[in-house]
Amino acid sequence: MDKPDPKNGESWTAAMLVIGDEILSGRTQDSNTAYVARFLAARGIDLKEARVVGDEEGAIVAALNALRGAYDVVFTTGGIGPTHDDITADGVAAAFGVPIGYHPQAYALLEARYGRDDFNEMRRRMARIPQGAELIANSVSVAPGFHIGNVFVLAGVPAIARAMLEALAPTLPQGAPVHAVTIGVELAEGAVAAGLAAIQKAHPGTAIGSYPYYREAGGFGVQLVVRGRDGAAVAAAAHAIEAHVRALGAVPARLTGSIP
Amino acid sequence: MDKPDPKNGESWTAAMLVIGDEILSGRTQDSNTAYVARFLAARGIDLKEARVVGDEEGAIVAALNALRGAYDVVFTTGGIGPTHDDITADGVAAAFGVPIGYHPQAYALLEARYGRDDFNEMRRRMARIPQGAELIANSVSVAPGFHIGNVFVLAGVPAIARAMLEALAPTLPQGAPVHAVTIGVELAEGAVAAGLAAIQKAHPGTAIGSYPYYREAGGFGVQLVVRGRDGAAVAAAAHAIEAHVRALGAVPARLTGSIP
Repeated sequence: MDKPDPKNGESWTAAMLVIGDEILSGRTQDSNTAYVARFLAARGIDLKEARVVGDEEGAIVAALNALRGAYDVVFTTGGIGPTHDDITADGVAAAFGVPIGYHPQAYALLEARYGRDDFNEMRRRMARIPQGAELIANSVSVAPGFHIGNVFVLAGVPAIARAMLEALAPTLPQGAPVHAVTIGVELAEGAVAAGLAAIQKAHPGTAIGSYPYYREAGGFGVQLVVRGRDGAAVAAAAHAIEAHVRALGAVPARLTGSIP
Repeated sequence: MDKPDPKNGESWTAAMLVIGDEILSGRTQDSNTAYVARFLAARGIDLKEARVVGDEEGAIVAALNALRGAYDVVFTTGGIGPTHDDITADGVAAAFGVPIGYHPQAYALLEARYGRDDFNEMRRRMARIPQGAELIANSVSVAPGFHIGNVFVLAGVPAIARAMLEALAPTLPQGAPVHAVTIGVELAEGAVAAGLAAIQKAHPGTAIGSYPYYREAGGFGVQLVVRGRDGAAVAAAAHAIEAHVRALGAVPARLTGSIP
């Protein structure tokens, strides 16, 4: 990583780039973004933006160059398999303006997995890695991801993407942790909103979110989420919300969060 | 809509903008993108890109202006409720450079729903609509979405977003329909890949995707998807794939698609 370790409260920013026609056609529900989001939040890295593009090199290059210039780190998922529509490695090489070719270690890993007879031309595509990239281990199906500059290229199959994240976790930056508290309230969102706005204004070091829900069986309410890097500020805002809810005659339920 | 009706085979392009901190923190799994994708595919509109940004006006404005300039239509979800973090309408007004204020019809609808006493200042926020926008009906919870230029602003709660899509469906353009066939094969992706690449090359009017799967109980395979606007071309590519799979000793399973 090029940047200094930000352990003293500096926050790292991240973006996610999901690559694949299957997401944009609605065939496949992306679950990698939510997983990466939680993985990063636990490491104090703020996911600031996510994009989905199809299997088109121009779209991949444009999105990747926009994101890697705007955020500290970028994660991509999808498009690193053996078939003709797997063009992520080429897109990343084009975005960085570097050549692409067989990576000796990736080639050896894949040849050992498939055996010389079954390591056909299409499977060899999975050993094509942009020049200067480092491999990311794949404990599920061998074919590696890779890391170049501030970009981490992961598989699209969720189990493999998760294994790759675990493999590279020790090398990722560690930001200051984010504290989060979720409070459930059986009130209409519009009934708590004015007090909530005042509490947000009085606690500028936190971000307060409000998420209404409607149950099919009937019943509704709102989940109020307080997030922030200053644990005391998050606790103070959470306590203010709980007092606000009680003043409205309801009982706040602390759903998640370990703030005292 | 500004563009002529493209029923004669012209394709419409669309983008999706998901707005909400809860998606980027991993708290909430976005399901609106996949739903909108399928909704649009059924209407012959190609979803070309999706983005997720947080509850920050600058991020909303930048993403919306990029997307509405690049694609025929844009759908947003999230950020139109009564709380302080619901800032989508302000972001859309800023992106279009128009004022925002109470929309008389939206105001009347919401006042009728809540009654004069409960129609508080925060709930009145839901009647703030950018100048020149038309309302999108909300059959679930009354508070409307809106449509300005080529941008359609929907709620984030999935049931409400879906109701709004149904409400505006008759006003949306109709593109030439996309035909899709899915073929399941119990073979490794790398075993079918070379033949698949040749079939893709021989059927340029189609897009062939390859999606491997791994079952926890064991077993693996690949789903091959052929998509395109020319039904005969899609059928020809699907038949070529089935013949290819049989030549490899496997039995292709036609999973979805009504091509003969």
